[in-house]
Amino acid sequence: MILRIDKLAIDLPAQAENPSPNSASAVQELLGGKFGEMSTLMNYTMQSFNFRGRAKYRPFYDLIANIAAEEFGHIELVSYAINLLLTGTTTRGTDPADTPLESAVDARNHYHFIASGQQALPIDSQGNPWNGTYVFSSGNLKLDLLHNFFLECGARANKIRVYEMVDDPVARHVVGYLLVRGGVHIVAYAKALEALTGVEVGKLLPIPDISNKKFPDAKVHEDRGLHRILYRFSPSDYQQISQIWTGTHPEDGSPLEVVQGPPEGATPPDLEEEPQLTSPLGTDIDPAMFADVAKKLFGAGGAGRGR
Amino acid sequence: MILRIDKLAIDLPAQAENPSPNSASAVQELLGGKFGEMSTLMNYTMQSFNFRGRAKYRPFYDLIANIAAEEFGHIELVSYAINLLLTGTTTRGTDPADTPLESAVDARNHYHFIASGQQALPIDSQGNPWNGTYVFSSGNLKLDLLHNFFLECGARANKIRVYEMVDDPVARHVVGYLLVRGGVHIVAYAKALEALTGVEVGKLLPIPDISNKKFPDAKVHEDRGLHRILYRFSPSDYQQISQIWTGTHPEDGSPLEVVQGPPEGATPPDLEEEPQLTSPLGTDIDPAMFADVAKKLFGAGGAGRGR
Amino acid sequence: MILRIDKLAIDLPAQAENPSPNSASAVQELLGGKFGEMSTLMNYTMQSFNFRGRAKYRPFYDLIANIAAEEFGHIELVSYAINLLLTGTTTRGTDPADTPLESAVDARNHYHFIASGQQALPIDSQGNPWNGTYVFSSGNLKLDLLHNFFLECGARANKIRVYEMVDDPVARHVVGYLLVRGGVHIVAYAKALEALTGVEVGKLLPIPDISNKKFPDAKVHEDRGLHRILYRFSPSDYQQISQIWTGTHPEDGSPLEVVQGPPEGATPPDLEEEPQLTSPLGTDIDPAMFADVAKKLFGAGGAGRGR
Amino acid sequence: MILRIDKLAIDLPAQAENPSPNSASAVQELLGGKFGEMSTLMNYTMQSFNFRGRAKYRPFYDLIANIAAEEFGHIELVSYAINLLLTGTTTRGTDPADTPLESAVDARNHYHFIASGQQALPIDSQGNPWNGTYVFSSGNLKLDLLHNFFLECGARANKIRVYEMVDDPVARHVVGYLLVRGGVHIVAYAKALEALTGVEVGKLLPIPDISNKKFPDAKVHEDRGLHRILYRFSPSDYQQISQIWTGTHPEDGSPLEVVQGPPEGATPPDLEEEPQLTSPLGTDIDPAMFADVAKKLFGAGGAGRGR
Amino acid sequence: MILRIDKLAIDLPAQAENPSPNSASAVQELLGGKFGEMSTLMNYTMQSFNFRGRAKYRPFYDLIANIAAEEFGHIELVSYAINLLLTGTTTRGTDPADTPLESAVDARNHYHFIASGQQALPIDSQGNPWNGTYVFSSGNLKLDLLHNFFLECGARANKIRVYEMVDDPVARHVVGYLLVRGGVHIVAYAKALEALTGVEVGKLLPIPDISNKKFPDAKVHEDRGLHRILYRFSPSDYQQISQIWTGTHPEDGSPLEVVQGPPEGATPPDLEEEPQLTSPLGTDIDPAMFADVAKKLFGAGGAGRGR
Amino acid sequence: MILRIDKLAIDLPAQAENPSPNSASAVQELLGGKFGEMSTLMNYTMQSFNFRGRAKYRPFYDLIANIAAEEFGHIELVSYAINLLLTGTTTRGTDPADTPLESAVDARNHYHFIASGQQALPIDSQGNPWNGTYVFSSGNLKLDLLHNFFLECGARANKIRVYEMVDDPVARHVVGYLLVRGGVHIVAYAKALEALTGVEVGKLLPIPDISNKKFPDAKVHEDRGLHRILYRFSPSDYQQISQIWTGTHPEDGSPLEVVQGPPEGATPPDLEEEPQLTSPLGTDIDPAMFADVAKKLFGAGGAGRGR
Repeated sequence: MILRIDKLAIDLPAQAENPSPNSASAVQELLGGKFGEMSTLMNYTMQSFNFRGRAKYRPFYDLIANIAAEEFGHIELVSYAINLLLTGTTTRGTDPADTPLESAVDARNHYHFIASGQQALPIDSQGNPWNGTYVFSSGNLKLDLLHNFFLECGARANKIRVYEMVDDPVARHVVGYLLVRGGVHIVAYAKALEALTGVEVGKLLPIPDISNKKFPDAKVHEDRGLHRILYRFSPSDYQQISQIWTGTHPEDGSPLEVVQGPPEGATPPDLEEEPQLTSPLGTDIDPAMFADVAKKLFGAGGAGRGR
Repeated sequence: MILRIDKLAIDLPAQAENPSPNSASAVQELLGGKFGEMSTLMNYTMQSFNFRGRAKYRPFYDLIANIAAEEFGHIELVSYAINLLLTGTTTRGTDPADTPLESAVDARNHYHFIASGQQALPIDSQGNPWNGTYVFSSGNLKLDLLHNFFLECGARANKIRVYEMVDDPVARHVVGYLLVRGGVHIVAYAKALEALTGVEVGKLLPIPDISNKKFPDAKVHEDRGLHRILYRFSPSDYQQISQIWTGTHPEDGSPLEVVQGPPEGATPPDLEEEPQLTSPLGTDIDPAMFADVAKKLFGAGGAGRGR
Repeated sequence: MILRIDKLAIDLPAQAENPSPNSASAVQELLGGKFGEMSTLMNYTMQSFNFRGRAKYRPFYDLIANIAAEEFGHIELVSYAINLLLTGTTTRGTDPADTPLESAVDARNHYHFIASGQQALPIDSQGNPWNGTYVFSSGNLKLDLLHNFFLECGARANKIRVYEMVDDPVARHVVGYLLVRGGVHIVAYAKALEALTGVEVGKLLPIPDISNKKFPDAKVHEDRGLHRILYRFSPSDYQQISQIWTGTHPEDGSPLEVVQGPPEGATPPDLEEEPQLTSPLGTDIDPAMFADVAKKLFGAGGAGRGR
Repeated sequence: MILRIDKLAIDLPAQAENPSPNSASAVQELLGGKFGEMSTLMNYTMQSFNFRGRAKYRPFYDLIANIAAEEFGHIELVSYAINLLLTGTTTRGTDPADTPLESAVDARNHYHFIASGQQALPIDSQGNPWNGTYVFSSGNLKLDLLHNFFLECGARANKIRVYEMVDDPVARHVVGYLLVRGGVHIVAYAKALEALTGVEVGKLLPIPDISNKKFPDAKVHEDRGLHRILYRFSPSDYQQISQIWTGTHPEDGSPLEVVQGPPEGATPPDLEEEPQLTSPLGTDIDPAMFADVAKKLFGAGGAGRGR
Repeated sequence: MILRIDKLAIDLPAQAENPSPNSASAVQELLGGKFGEMSTLMNYTMQSFNFRGRAKYRPFYDLIANIAAEEFGHIELVSYAINLLLTGTTTRGTDPADTPLESAVDARNHYHFIASGQQALPIDSQGNPWNGTYVFSSGNLKLDLLHNFFLECGARANKIRVYEMVDDPVARHVVGYLLVRGGVHIVAYAKALEALTGVEVGKLLPIPDISNKKFPDAKVHEDRGLHRILYRFSPSDYQQISQIWTGTHPEDGSPLEVVQGPPEGATPPDLEEEPQLTSPLGTDIDPAMFADVAKKLFGAGGAGRGR
Repeated sequence: MILRIDKLAIDLPAQAENPSPNSASAVQELLGGKFGEMSTLMNYTMQSFNFRGRAKYRPFYDLIANIAAEEFGHIELVSYAINLLLTGTTTRGTDPADTPLESAVDARNHYHFIASGQQALPIDSQGNPWNGTYVFSSGNLKLDLLHNFFLECGARANKIRVYEMVDDPVARHVVGYLLVRGGVHIVAYAKALEALTGVEVGKLLPIPDISNKKFPDAKVHEDRGLHRILYRFSPSDYQQISQIWTGTHPEDGSPLEVVQGPPEGATPPDLEEEPQLTSPLGTDIDPAMFADVAKKLFGAGGAGRGR
C-alpha cells in the first residue's frame, strides 16, 4: 500500500516561461516512452510484487521497492512539466466560433488538445501509448538488476537529449532534477550488482559518456549533494537499503547517504482553467446552481474551503 | 509523492489451495485488462496530476487523488493473487534435462513461464499488454467523473465474471475484497457527480444488476461495513474527501464514513524460490561466494537480517 | 447512408449443435482477423468514400460501394455464428458461489467470458483486436482492385481452414455460405481488373487451388446458383455494377446475373439470456419495478410488444 | 443486412475553402479516434448483433440497432470532410521530377500522401489505427447503455475541440451537424437508461458543459429542430424506438419526434483526380486502350454513362 | 545462413545535399512501413523458411529465397538514406546548455533525436513500429505469389510518392534505384505466377500506371539495363531462378538476364560523430584512457587500423 | 549486402519425434518474442547501419555487423524447429468435410493453422507480432553494447525456459545449439565493453546463474568447443572482430578463436506438403496442366530438376 503526499519533489512555478506544445511533446517521451518514468515506476513496482525469497535477499527487495516509490514522484514531476509547457499555448475563451484552439492544428501532438485539456497523457513523444511490454520482470535477480541498470542508463540518454531539445527553464529544471535522481538509481543498481557478484559495474559510468555536472540544472542539485542521497520513501519499511547504498559514489567519490523519509517537497502549482476546453467546467455551468448544490452537499463553507 | 508501506490491504496465505496457471491467466484481466486495476490506478493518477482549478474544486481533486492512492494497493493485491495461483504449478528442480516446466506448455499464458518467473505481468487475460489508451483524462470534470463512474462499473463486471470463473479460495478472497472496495469507488464517483449536478446517479446501482452481498467473499467484508468506508491514504492531505463521502450508501442506506489513514494491513507472504526458473537465483551460484560478497558488503549480519 | 434490415442473409437456428468456445475462438478470425469480414467491410467502405473521378469510372465505384454493403451482412453472420457457438458453454445460474463460469477458465479466449456476455468481439482467433492498418485505400484504382482481389483470396484461404477446423453444422453452414459469397467478390474484382486492363485475371482461380464445390455447405448454395449472382444492395443506386458483373463465371462457365435487391433473408434467432453474466440484466432487477418503469414509458403494452 | 444509398446526410461542396493537411489530420480523430465515428458505429453494431433476450427488451434492441445505422452515415460524412480538406494541398501534375508532393513533407500525417491518395484512413489524429479494443459489448444492458451514454459524451468533447481547432467552413459544417446528431444519441441513451432505471440521467446534460447552440454550425440545425428528431433508418424494422424516443428534450424541452426513414440527403461531391498520386489512374494509361476495353465490356455507352 | 559484405548496392556520398528531418521521416515509410523494405525482406525470408515440397517446386523456392537476400541490401540502402538526411540537421556541440538539439523540437519524428543518434529506426513515417502482422506466409504457393506481386506493387506506389515528396538528390538516388530493383521483383513474381498458371499477369503492369522511366533517378538505371537483371545473391545456391527469370520484360520487351552474384557495390560512407548525442561516444571519454585500453586489447595498431 | 547459403547451421531431421502445436507455440517466443532471434538480428543489423565514426571504432563496428549476420541463421533455425513441431499435428487429407484440422481447434496458436500452413510466423508465444519497439539503437556505443549484453542475457533466460518446457529432441537440439551460440554473443559483448571501459563485465556471467553445460543439448556443442569460436560470416570483411574476440572465455578459461567463414552447415530438410491446407498447392491443381505450363517455361527437365 502507499500513502500519498500532496507535494512535488521540487518547487515549480505556476507557469512556464516559454510555453510550447512541441516541447511538451518532446517531454512526453520522459513520461510514456519506453525509457520514460512510467517504465521505471512499473518495472520496479512489478519486480517488488514478484520478488521471491525475500528472507534471503531482503536488501535487494527493499532497494527495488523503495526506488519504485520514488518513481511515482517522477511521473508526477514530468506530468507537471508537460502541463506547464501546454498552459498558455492557445487562446483562452468561451466562444467556439473564434477558433480558440487554432494554434493547436500545427502542434505535433493533437491528443493534448483533443483527448486531454492541454495536459499530460501516458504516451510518448510520437503519441504512442506506454504499454506493458516495457516491463521486465524475469524473476532472476541478477538479470533483473542488470535490466534495471540498463534501463536507467537508457532513461538517462533520453533525459540528456530532451534537455538538449527544450529550452524552457521550468522544463529544464525538472529534467535536471530527474537526471540527478535517475543517476542515483543507476548507481544504486550498480551497487546491487556489485553486492551480488563482486564486479565493479559502477566503473562503467557515466553512460552515456557525459557527466551530469555538464548540465547546469543538474549541477545545481549535485552541488547540494543530491546525487549521493537515497531517500527512504516509507514510514518504517525498506530499512535494508542502507546495506546496498553504502560506500562512495563511483563518479566523484563522495560518500553515499540514506535519508530517512522523502524530500521536503513543495506545494504543487494550481494551473488555471482552460475554458475553451471546458477544463474543468464549461460555459454553461450556472454558477448559482453549482453553488446551491455545493452548499447543500459541502456545507456553508462550500467546496474548496482550505485544504 | 508517495510513501510506501510493506503491507497488503488484506492478509494472504503463503500458498493457494488450487494453483492453476489458467486461473492466474484469468485474474490477469483484473491487473492489466482495459478494466483492470492498472487502468483505475493510472486514470485517477493522471487526472489528479492534470486537475486544473483546484482552489475552486478541491473536494473533487482530493477525491480523485485519494482513490488513486488506494488503487496502488489493488494492483498489489491482484499481483499477489496471480503469483499465488502460479506458485506450485511446475515441478521444482534444477536439472533442465528433466523438463521441469513441461506442464507449462499447455498453459494459456506462456509469458508467465518464459518472461517472468511464474509471476504477474502488466498484461491481460489474453497476454495483451496494458496500454495508455486505457487512460481518460479530458480535463472536463463532469466528463471525467462520468468516465470514472463507468470505468468502475465496467471493472466491477470484470471482477464478477472472474470470480465466477476461478474457484481457488485465495483468489476469491482477493476478488471479493476488490468487489467491495471497487464498490466504494463506484459510490464515491456517483456522489461526486451528484455534488456537481444534483442528479441522483447512485440510484442506477448496482451495475451490473447483482448485489455484492451475493458473493460470499465480498459479503464477509460488507458485513464488517467496509463498503461504507473511504480510507484517507495520506498522512495529512486530501481532507476534503469528507465533503463528498457523506450521507448514506445508495444500496443499503448505511452511513458513509471516512477513516483517517489506510487499513491496518498485513505482512505480505514471502513466496518460495523457483529454481527451475532461476528465480531469484540459479544453480550455479556458489553459496559460499555469495556469502562472502554479502558479508563484505552487508556486514556480519549479512543480507536479510530482520526487516 | 444506409438502411438496416432486421434480417440475416441466411436462416440460422436458435442454438448450435456442438457449442464450443474454442471453435468460437477460431471463427473469430473470420470476423476480426486481418482477412476477416471487418477487413473486407472497411476496405471497400473506405475505398468507396475515397473514390475520385466517379463520373469517369462509375462502374468501378458502384461495384466497390455495393460489395461493401453486402459485407455488413457478413460481419453480422459471422457474429451470430460465434454467439451460437458460445451459447451453452457455461452453466446457467445466478449464484456466483457456484462458479458458473468454471468451464471458461480453460477456453482459448477469455474475453468472450469477461469482456462480453459470451458474444462476438472485433478480435481475431488469438484475441488481438482488428485494426485500421488492415485497410488499404491507395486511391490508385488498379492497385486497389488488385488488393481487393488478393484480400478476397486470402479471406477465402482463412474460411477454408476454419471450415476444416470446426465441425459444428451451424458454424459450417455460415462458413459455407461465406465461401460462396466471398467467391462472388473474388470474381467481381477479377472482372473489374479485366475491364480495366484486358488481362484475364479470373483464370488464376481458384485460389487456393480447391473448388468451393468440395465443401458440402458451399456446394449446396452453388447448386442453387448463388455463386453467379451479384445482389444490388440499394433501393435505387449502384446500377452500373451490371457493366462489370456480366459474361460467365470463370470457374464453371455459368452465366453471371445481377439481382436487384438483397437476398430475402431470415429473422435472426433470439438468443437466451445468460444470467451468470447478467446478460442482459442480472439477478437484482426487481421485475415489478422494471415493469412499472416500462409501463410508464412504453405504455400498457410494455416493452417488447411485437415488432 | 443493409441497403446502401448513394447520398450524404447533408450537402457538401466539391471543394473546401481552406484546404489544410493539418486540419485534415485533426478531423481524423473524429473518424478513427477512440471517440470517433468508427467507434460509435462498431460499438452499437456489435451490441446489436450480441443482444440477448430481444423479445423482452425489444425497444432497447431497436434503439441500439437503429443508431448504429445512422453512424454509417457519420463515418461517411467525416471521411468526406477529410477528403475535402486534403484536396488541393499539393501541386497537381504528372511529372515526378517536379516534386509535386513537396508540400506534404511537413504535413502532420504522411499516410495521407503515401498510403492514400490524399484521402481518409481509419486512423486518428496521430496516425494511430482505430482498433477493436475501442468496442465495449458486455452483454449487460444497463452497463452497455451507460457506456454508450459516456461514449457519446466523450465523442461530443472531441467534436467540440476539433471544431475549435479547424476554421474551414466545410469542415465546420460537417462537425456542426455531427454535434447535433451525436447530441440526439446522447439523449437517446439517457432516455434508455431512464426507461430501465427511472433515474433522470438526462439532467446531467450538457456534457461537456456547453450548449450546442453556442456553435453556429450546430445551431443552424437545432433551429430547424434536428436535435429532437430520431430517424428510423430502415424500410420497416426497429419500430419500437418510438417507445424510448418520446417526451421532451432534456435541454430545451422541445418535443421529441421519430421520423420514419432517413434524412433526404444529398448527392456526394465527386472529387477530382490527383494525377501526381495516380489516383485513380496514372499517366501511362493510354486513354484509347482503356476506351477500347471499356467499350468491349461496358457497351457503346462506355463506363460512366449516367447513374 | 548468410554471408555479409561490407558494401552498399550503390555508391552514396558522405553527406546529403539538403539534410531534412521531415524528409527522413517520409523515407522511414520505405523502411518500416507496411510496404517498406522490412516487409519485403521478412515476407520472403519467412516464406523461404516455410516452403514445403521444395523438390517439386524448386524454381519457386529459389526465387523467393534469392529475392529475400536482395532485400537485405534494400533495408540497408534505405537506412543509409535516412541517416544521410538526418546528419547535419542539428548543431554539433558538446555543451548541453546550448540546446544543441533545439531544431529537433519541431521535427515530425522525435525518435530520431531521442531514441537514436539521428539514425534510422524500424518505424514508419508516423513513428509506428514495423510489426509482424505485415508478413504473409500462407503456405499456398499461388496465394503467396499473388501476395508478393501485390506487395511489390504497393511498395512501388509508396516509393513513387516518397520520390515526389523528397527533393534531396541522395534520397532520390536511393529511391530511384529501389524503384528499378523493386520493379524487377514485380516482374519476377508475375513470371512466377505465369509459370504456375499460364495467366499473363505481367500485362497488368505498370501498377501504378506510370513508368519507372518517368523518374530520372530510375531511368538512369534502366538505361543501363538494371530492370532486366536478376542477381543471384549466393555463392552457389538458388540456381533455378533462371527457370523463371527468362523471356522478355513485359513493359519494354528487353531480354531478361540472370547475373551470377551480387552487384559490385560500393564502400559505405562513414558518417561523422554527433557529439551532442554522444554518438558514438561523449564528452567525458578521456581519449588517453580509451587509447590505453584499446592498446592493451587491440595491440599497438589500436582499434580502427585499416579494414 | 548479403549472400545467402542454402544451408542450416546444424543438421535437422525431416520430422520431429513429438510434434506438438503447443510446443511450437512456446518456441515462437524464441523467434518473434521481445528477446527472440528477430530482436537480436534486427538490433545488430540496425546498429551496424547506424554506426558512426567507423574509422575510429572499427573493431566494434565489425563485431556488431558480423554477429548480425550470424543471427540470420538463428531466425532460420528457430523457424525450422517450429515447422518441424507443427508438421504431423493434423490429419493430412484433401476432403474438407472430414474436418482434417479438427485437432487444431484446441491448439494455443490458431495462426499456425489459419494464417500459415503449419509454419512459423514472426510472432511470439502468445501470438503477438514482433515489432520495431524491440530495437534499440541509441548511437552511443557504450550504451548500445550494454543493451546488447543485456539483450543476449534476456534471450538466454528465454531459451533456458523454453528448453525446460519442450521435450521434443529436435526442438531441444536447436535450442541447445542456440544457447551455445547466444552464449558466444554474450561473451563477445562483454569483451567489447571491457575493451571500451576496462571493466570486467564477463565476470557477471553466467546470467541467469546456470551453466550451459547443465543442458545436454548445449553441452554436446561446448564439448566440441563451439562456445569459444566466433565465426566470421563474410567473404572478406569484418576482419577486426579478432581484436575483440581474443583472450580466454570468462566461464571456463578456454582460449577464444575466430573461425574464418561460416560453419559448414547442412542441407535443410524438405518438409512434406500439407494438402488439407493446400500448402503449397491444393487438390484442384491438374497435375497435367501444371506439368504443361512447367514444361513450357522450365524446359524438358521441368521445375525441380536438381538444385
